[in-house]
Amino acid sequence: MLITSNQSNSELLKTEQLVYAEYKSANLNLDMSRGKPCPAQLDLSQGMFDILTSSTVIKGAQDYRNYGLLDGIPEFKKIVCDLINVQPSELLLGGNSSLNLMYDSVQRAMQFGILGGTPFNKQGKIKWLCPVPGYDRHFAITETFGIEMINVPLDENGPDINFIKAQIKDPAVKGMWCVPKYSNPTGIVYSDSIVEQLATLKPAASDFRIYWDNAYMIHTLEEQDTPLLNILTIAKQNNNADIVYIFGSTSKITFAGGGIAFIASSEKNMSEIKKRMSMQTIGHDKINQFAHYSFFKTSTNIIEHMQKHAKIIKPKFDIVINTLETLLDANIAKWSYPKGGYFISCDLAHGTAKRTIALAKEAGVIFTPAGSTYPYGNDPLDSNVRIAPTLPSLQDLSTAMKVFCVAAKIAYLEKHA
Amino acid sequence: MLITSNQSNSELLKTEQLVYAEYKSANLNLDMSRGKPCPAQLDLSQGMFDILTSSTVIKGAQDYRNYGLLDGIPEFKKIVCDLINVQPSELLLGGNSSLNLMYDSVQRAMQFGILGGTPFNKQGKIKWLCPVPGYDRHFAITETFGIEMINVPLDENGPDINFIKAQIKDPAVKGMWCVPKYSNPTGIVYSDSIVEQLATLKPAASDFRIYWDNAYMIHTLEEQDTPLLNILTIAKQNNNADIVYIFGSTSKITFAGGGIAFIASSEKNMSEIKKRMSMQTIGHDKINQFAHYSFFKTSTNIIEHMQKHAKIIKPKFDIVINTLETLLDANIAKWSYPKGGYFISCDLAHGTAKRTIALAKEAGVIFTPAGSTYPYGNDPLDSNVRIAPTLPSLQDLSTAMKVFCVAAKIAYLEKHA
Repeated sequence: MLITSNQSNSELLKTEQLVYAEYKSANLNLDMSRGKPCPAQLDLSQGMFDILTSSTVIKGAQDYRNYGLLDGIPEFKKIVCDLINVQPSELLLGGNSSLNLMYDSVQRAMQFGILGGTPFNKQGKIKWLCPVPGYDRHFAITETFGIEMINVPLDENGPDINFIKAQIKDPAVKGMWCVPKYSNPTGIVYSDSIVEQLATLKPAASDFRIYWDNAYMIHTLEEQDTPLLNILTIAKQNNNADIVYIFGSTSKITFAGGGIAFIASSEKNMSEIKKRMSMQTIGHDKINQFAHYSFFKTSTNIIEHMQKHAKIIKPKFDIVINTLETLLDANIAKWSYPKGGYFISCDLAHGTAKRTIALAKEAGVIFTPAGSTYPYGNDPLDSNVRIAPTLPSLQDLSTAMKVFCVAAKIAYLEKHA
Repeated sequence: MLITSNQSNSELLKTEQLVYAEYKSANLNLDMSRGKPCPAQLDLSQGMFDILTSSTVIKGAQDYRNYGLLDGIPEFKKIVCDLINVQPSELLLGGNSSLNLMYDSVQRAMQFGILGGTPFNKQGKIKWLCPVPGYDRHFAITETFGIEMINVPLDENGPDINFIKAQIKDPAVKGMWCVPKYSNPTGIVYSDSIVEQLATLKPAASDFRIYWDNAYMIHTLEEQDTPLLNILTIAKQNNNADIVYIFGSTSKITFAGGGIAFIASSEKNMSEIKKRMSMQTIGHDKINQFAHYSFFKTSTNIIEHMQKHAKIIKPKFDIVINTLETLLDANIAKWSYPKGGYFISCDLAHGTAKRTIALAKEAGVIFTPAGSTYPYGNDPLDSNVRIAPTLPSLQDLSTAMKVFCVAAKIAYLEKHA
């Protein structure tokens, strides 16, 4: 129901409250809060469990069942190198969590510094650039280390590059979180111009790094993937190779709980990372790396595999967007039309996001908490909501979104009654 | 050949040099440096790869293929709880590396402090107790953080408890490395009295912890395992539950490169660890945890599995000890007779360990570097050598040990010519 001028807002509010009451009485219990793959997506890789058997020789450069090979097995490294266009010497395969690699990268910088620089812990106040809205777990890492986070405006081309260029004149600015492709939550892909300007940044701090979380590097919802320029290549061409740490994983390609994460960077950065990491572990799980290699064999097969994901989740994104289009007017909400990734970003009327989420929760539908797409959980406009369509069934999703819309309308009308 | 009084030392040296020259001309290339399981040991768990198939439902408390369950799956937690006699609330299953859990525990203490205490980074000089000889990778962690390491004498009952009690009066002493069972490298098992006294330590520093690396918790070489008292139980009984972090893994039960590591401690400690770790990762690889659970099902089956390991590696330990007994006299070397674990510790005549290892290396046989069983790689007596018998074949082992013995004799005779 769109809001028209025929009824007063208080009349409209009453109507919406009746709709809401009906949902509330249905005792719903739906969780839309996290970007988790659904069982059908996980099933796509279930064949991996037939690949290794008791007679498989799990061996290549060495016996992969044994200790060693800190940077991972060459066979799966090659596939990742093909996907993100880096050299094997620029890549390390980790465990199952790219978040872990990011956290550890920040912690290493805090404790030991970067390439001979003073440890961040000893540099007084440290600052970090955070394009908003962004990923709550990124912000949680920088918050945990007591790093001051600075909101950076983000539009459909990427973060505000002029703002960034002004900020990095401050030597206390040491890093920047980026989800450059199918961004969490807005779904945008950084434009060529933005990537080029980021790759060639000349920050005051030599230990400034871009933490480039390419979580959705091949996670298109369409037949054709939207290309993203290779930031490391451009950085290298411009004698600026050390500016970026690239992260990613197969968490949303194979198994969210048991994929392969990676970090890629210049050889100089990687050499330092490996030196430090060799104190922390003898190596990550090479058997799982080998299973992943044996299941896919080539990067082309992984790209094809992603089309199967798209077939499953595209209809879910469509339901969310259709429901928003059908039920919400432009003065109540604007939303993104992502071509990939895991989220739809919805900007509600200012000052209504918290109330909307609270109303939905009261009716048994959990959304990502309002504010969580901003550092410190503080969305200054109380507007942005991250919608995660992948996990619920189509039917649950439809119900959840109807609840969301009526909640958004009530929150709006309460404010404008 | 034992050294007798019939010949002068310089005559004996010439004889040994001839033997050595023969080995050298054989162009050997043997690596005895690391405690790695051999392929036959890894084959014991190869059946795990038949357990999960494309039709396996990898599910329990939740879909284990998806995100979540930071502390691990309850099914495998139960098995580990049964093995080490702790409660599920006192246990967290990690990734494939207990070293990683140890490193991260020290790093957390450095960065954030322990249970509200000041971060170690802000406490000035920090000290650590290191029973010697010990595990080089432990010492590498504390060295990496700039922590001053204090050698603690170790005998057949465990570390010198009176020395420890004196040291922990210093509030700068924050931790202690222990390998309490089949110790690396001496093979000793801490006596009941030592465990009891460690469990009831009252250090000046409330953020002092014992880092209890129970790496060889069930790794007997005999039919009967040597029991080790449960330090956490005793600590709890004495209102001292927070004194210890326990670590372990299945690295030398299933796969060195792809096992399951764990950390166990008081609920209070675990609650803090989980809170911090939840910033670092959403969870560890639950699919591998489920594979481990499905392969073993019960702790009893794991214990039985260890007998198969013992059958493979006991003969290797025997060859090392027999060769030492046959070729080396008591004035040249003393060695351990371990009942479990992965190492034989050999104390050479003072001042000859480095030379012995160098001679062996020159003849193509790599041993763990002399000194590496001591903090900073500094064995004050230049005496201790860690011998790792598990990886090489019986034949290689026999050759390697003969080279070791002739090298030890030459090093001794050079010094006493």
